[in-house]
Parts: sequence; C-alpha cells; structure tokens
Amino acid sequence: MPSPAQKPALQQTPLDHILAALESDMDAVNTLILTRMESPVPLIKQLATYLIAAGGKRVRPLLTLASTALYSGDMKRAHLLAACVEFIHTATLLHDDVVDESRERRGKESANVVFGNQASVLVGDFLFSRAFQLMTEDGSIEVLRILSDASATIAEGEVLQLSVAGQIDMPMDTYIQVITGKTAALFAAAVEVGPVIADAGSAQQQAMRDFGLNLGIAFQIADDVLDYRGNQAKIGKTVGDDFREGKLTAPVLYALQNASDEERAFWARVMTDKDQQADDLKQALALIDKHDGIGKGLALAASYAQKAKYALTTMPDSPLRAQLSDLVDYMVNRDF
Amino acid sequence: MPSPAQKPALQQTPLDHILAALESDMDAVNTLILTRMESPVPLIKQLATYLIAAGGKRVRPLLTLASTALYSGDMKRAHLLAACVEFIHTATLLHDDVVDESRERRGKESANVVFGNQASVLVGDFLFSRAFQLMTEDGSIEVLRILSDASATIAEGEVLQLSVAGQIDMPMDTYIQVITGKTAALFAAAVEVGPVIADAGSAQQQAMRDFGLNLGIAFQIADDVLDYRGNQAKIGKTVGDDFREGKLTAPVLYALQNASDEERAFWARVMTDKDQQADDLKQALALIDKHDGIGKGLALAASYAQKAKYALTTMPDSPLRAQLSDLVDYMVNRDF
Repeated sequence: MPSPAQKPALQQTPLDHILAALESDMDAVNTLILTRMESPVPLIKQLATYLIAAGGKRVRPLLTLASTALYSGDMKRAHLLAACVEFIHTATLLHDDVVDESRERRGKESANVVFGNQASVLVGDFLFSRAFQLMTEDGSIEVLRILSDASATIAEGEVLQLSVAGQIDMPMDTYIQVITGKTAALFAAAVEVGPVIADAGSAQQQAMRDFGLNLGIAFQIADDVLDYRGNQAKIGKTVGDDFREGKLTAPVLYALQNASDEERAFWARVMTDKDQQADDLKQALALIDKHDGIGKGLALAASYAQKAKYALTTMPDSPLRAQLSDLVDYMVNRDF
Repeated sequence: MPSPAQKPALQQTPLDHILAALESDMDAVNTLILTRMESPVPLIKQLATYLIAAGGKRVRPLLTLASTALYSGDMKRAHLLAACVEFIHTATLLHDDVVDESRERRGKESANVVFGNQASVLVGDFLFSRAFQLMTEDGSIEVLRILSDASATIAEGEVLQLSVAGQIDMPMDTYIQVITGKTAALFAAAVEVGPVIADAGSAQQQAMRDFGLNLGIAFQIADDVLDYRGNQAKIGKTVGDDFREGKLTAPVLYALQNASDEERAFWARVMTDKDQQADDLKQALALIDKHDGIGKGLALAASYAQKAKYALTTMPDSPLRAQLSDLVDYMVNRDF
C-alpha cells in the first residue's frame, strides 16, 4: 500500500488534505469510537461494528476536529466530542434505514436487512444514549445544549419529511426546512463545538455554526441531485432511491415548478400514489432533464456553499481555513 | 366528580396518597409535559399527545417528585426533571411498541398502529432528545450523567431481551439482567435525581438508587406475572402478550425449571419456534400453574420489594417515606 507521499497529487481531494493534517487526531477518534461502543450485550457491538467499521467518510467528526484545531482548542476534548457526533450520526442512520426500509448502505446490505429492524431501532437508541454519556464525561453544558438541540432538530426534520412525503405541492422552503433538520443541524453542531472548546467567544461560535449549517444544506442538496445522476458504484446506493420512496427533493421540485398538467399527473401518480411502473424512473429522469432540475439543484447547492465560504472569512486565517473553503466546493461538486 | 375527600377511603391506594400529597407538583409536571412537547412539526405534537394524554399512571415522574420532597429539595427543578423522566419513558414505549409489533397500549390502539412505525420511531427520537434539552436547562452534569447512563442501560436491556428471545435455557439471572435494564434503570434514575437536587450526599443518593432499582425489578416481575393472570380490562393489555412474543419471563422460567422432556418440547415449540396453535396459551397457563410459576414469580418480586423497603429505612423518616414503603407493596401486589 503506498504511503500518502507516494499517492499521485491529482487524486488528493480537499477531504484528503484535511484528513492528512489531522491524521493522528482522526486515529484517536477512531480508537475512541471502537472502544466506546463496547457493551456487555454482544449484539450491540456486532451491529455497531458492522455499520461503523464499514467506514463512511467520517466527515462530521473530521469537522469537529478541524473546527477545534482552527481555534487551537484542546484536541483531547475534540476527540471525545467528535466520537459523540459520529455516534449521533450513526444512530440516525440506523433509524433512517428502518424508516425508509432501505436495503443498502455504503455499498453493502444495510443493518436493518442483516440484523433486523428491531435491533436497528434499539442499537440506534443505545448509540444515541452513549453519545450523551460521553458528553457528560466532557462536562460542558454548552456542548450538551448544542448537541441535544441538534438531536431534537434532526428528529423534527425527519418527522417533517415523513409528513410531507409525496406532497407534490410542497414549497421549496419546506424542502430546505427538512434538510436543515435532517442533515444541516448536525453539521452545524459538529463545527460549533470547536469554538466552544476553545472558548473563542459567541461571535466565532455563531460564524462556525453558520458555516456548518450552510455546508450541510449545500451537501444535502448535492446528495439529492446525485440520487438522480450518481455513479452507483461510487456512492454505494442505487440511483432513484428517493424516487422510489416518494421523497420530493430539489431536482423533482424544480421539474414540478413549470410542469404541464400531464407532467403533474405523472408526478402525482408516481410520488403521491406511489404507483410506479418499470419505465417511470426513466420518465422522471427525462422530465428532470427537460426542466433542468439537475442544473438548478446544483445552482441552489452552490448558493448555500457560497454562504458557507463567506462565514469562513470571519475566522482566523490559516491553511486549515483555506482547506475548509476548498472542502465546501468539493462536497457540492463531488460525483461520489 | 367527587373531591378527594369524598372518595371512599377503601379505594385509596398508596399511589393515591402520594399523588394527593404532591398534587400541585404533579399538576406542574403535567403542564410542563404538555408545553414542552411542542414542536413546529404538527405530527410530533399529535403523536405525543395521543400517547401522553392517554394517561398512564405517571409513576416515574411521581417518584422523582417524591424523592425530591423527601429531602426538601427544590421542587421547581424536580418538576422539570420529572418531565424528562416521563419523556424518556414515553420514547422507550414508542420504540418498544414498534419492536414488539404491539397493537394496544393503555387500553387503546398503540401509536404504531395509529400513526405507523416510521412516525413512532422518529417521534420517540424527538422525545428522547427533548428530554436531554430539558436536562441541559436544569444544568446539572450529575443529573445528565444519571439519566444518560439510565438511557444506555435501558437500550442494553432491550437489546439483550431481543438477543435471548425464545431461548428456553436462559438462566434466571439473564432475565433479571434484562428487566434491570429495560425497567429498573429508569426507576433508579428517577429517584436518584431527588437527593442530587437536594445535595443530600452520596450515601443518600446510593440508598435512593437502591430503592428505585429494587422497586423497578419487583414491579417488572409483578408485571410479567400479571401477563399470565391479569385482569385484561384493567391492565389494558391482553393476557399472554409475552407468550405470543416468545418473551421468557419469570412464570415461564419457573415452569421450565422442573419441566419434563415433553413439557420442554412444548416450550421449545411455542417459544423458540414460535409455532403456536389455538390451545397453546391454555396449555402454557396449565404448565405455569402446575409448577407454581405465578406463586414463585410473586415470591421473587416480593424479595426485591423487601430490598427496596430496606433501602428506605436509611432515609429521613417522614409520612412520605412511609407512603413510599406502602407503594412498594402495592406495586407488587396490584392486579391492575
């Protein structure tokens, strides 16, 4: 296996750069994640290992590390809280896969398929509780406030998404509200923790929060766009998952904005009534293409990416800050 | 509606006595529960109202109030933390009913039937998060430690229960471990909060914890016994629920201890293979009766009740302490 120095420079992404800068910290986080999901109940460890060891890019804990390093905060505390953030994220993935009846996650069978819905619900609860146990070890009430607020907002976003499923008249604002809850709230909390650890003051805390929130929104919009054009092998999920689940995301909402009556009837049938035939995904992709749903979706993502990068300008200048700025573009333009 | 004074004295239970002594505090808790489950997402409030407004006896929040009053602690803090305890309890009920595929709860259709599994999982997550938000408002790291430990232990108990479902060789110790997790941990936490609020010292905190833990174990054993002999109209659940779910509880474990080969084959078929025929519950009840599973189960519950009452003796003497002692007996001997 080549050492990082031998990797061709062209393959290095902004994520790789940040990861390289924080490699020993990320190792410490990974160790903590493995040791702190221990339980006397074997099934907990089996299921948690299955999901956590499967990898994923660990973007959220990395953001906690980066936001702490940016303010020269105590990295030991950052390790612990980064692990909390990943536990909360993992718990929500477990519950999401049950709720969405998903079959795949990160390119392999999802935990609910392998271990069953019951175990997924309960181990999700365990990881969520474990995250709060770790936070009490850290002892900062402000951190506990930030992450319990985020957890409640995530659940609200998920319930809202469920409530509006298949509603083709859903305004774009509601979509933004859903993804702010289900995705951006945890990004915001993950980075807000940094200036709190470093005691950098409320203005920096707010700026970091803005950064994370807008990055999270941009990331989720880009993810939703990918669902209609992604490279299946790379993203480890099937194109059209949102379509099959009747989830109305940016590409479809744009296709709906100028839809003919006939097109609206199509969307009502496939998304509201969930009456889907073999060729309907192909038809959906054609309608999204006709109305430039992909292009408009990416432009929307870019507008939030811009806000995220603007929030960064108020932070201490450093190579890491520049890398975070590059990361924003990367996360919106990725095809993985 | 008659005022409490007009109620015939014979109908007053120890629970009524404690409730009467703490009536205005319980009103404050009920108000907090209703106001703090507010969310901009309507489905959250609808589902939470359905379950919480349905009542239940609110034993756990009442125990938090009583344990605080016993030490003359700040009742305002007790109100908030009692609401947290009820939110955690409600969240676990929502998830349990999904995991057990329950159809009924408190005498009406369970939330998963009315609102679906998806909403039940996600609103459970919301209530759980909301509990931690309220705790951060209170601001005590010790309380957060106690309740996050309890939450993790509850999840561990539930996963363990799932792991050993249908295993007719399960030792009685494992059963105690399951119910200590799924039930007693929250009882213990609910009462441990009192001496913490009142700053009554670690010995009193430990004594209260012992009281709650043993009360919780006794209560759950009694509940499991009721599942094979309960008055269906009163308990609002069907006799034999545990049987149908293949949950091995005290009455069945006692019936298994001296079972003949033929009897073991019966239990293996109905509990392990879950191959149940029309008359099997009747046969199960007959076998439990033959081996005195009810009597032995109640004796086991009584032994934990004894420990709970012993723990009380180290606490400040007061009418409330005496009522708590009566409550222990009542919760083990009830037929509701």
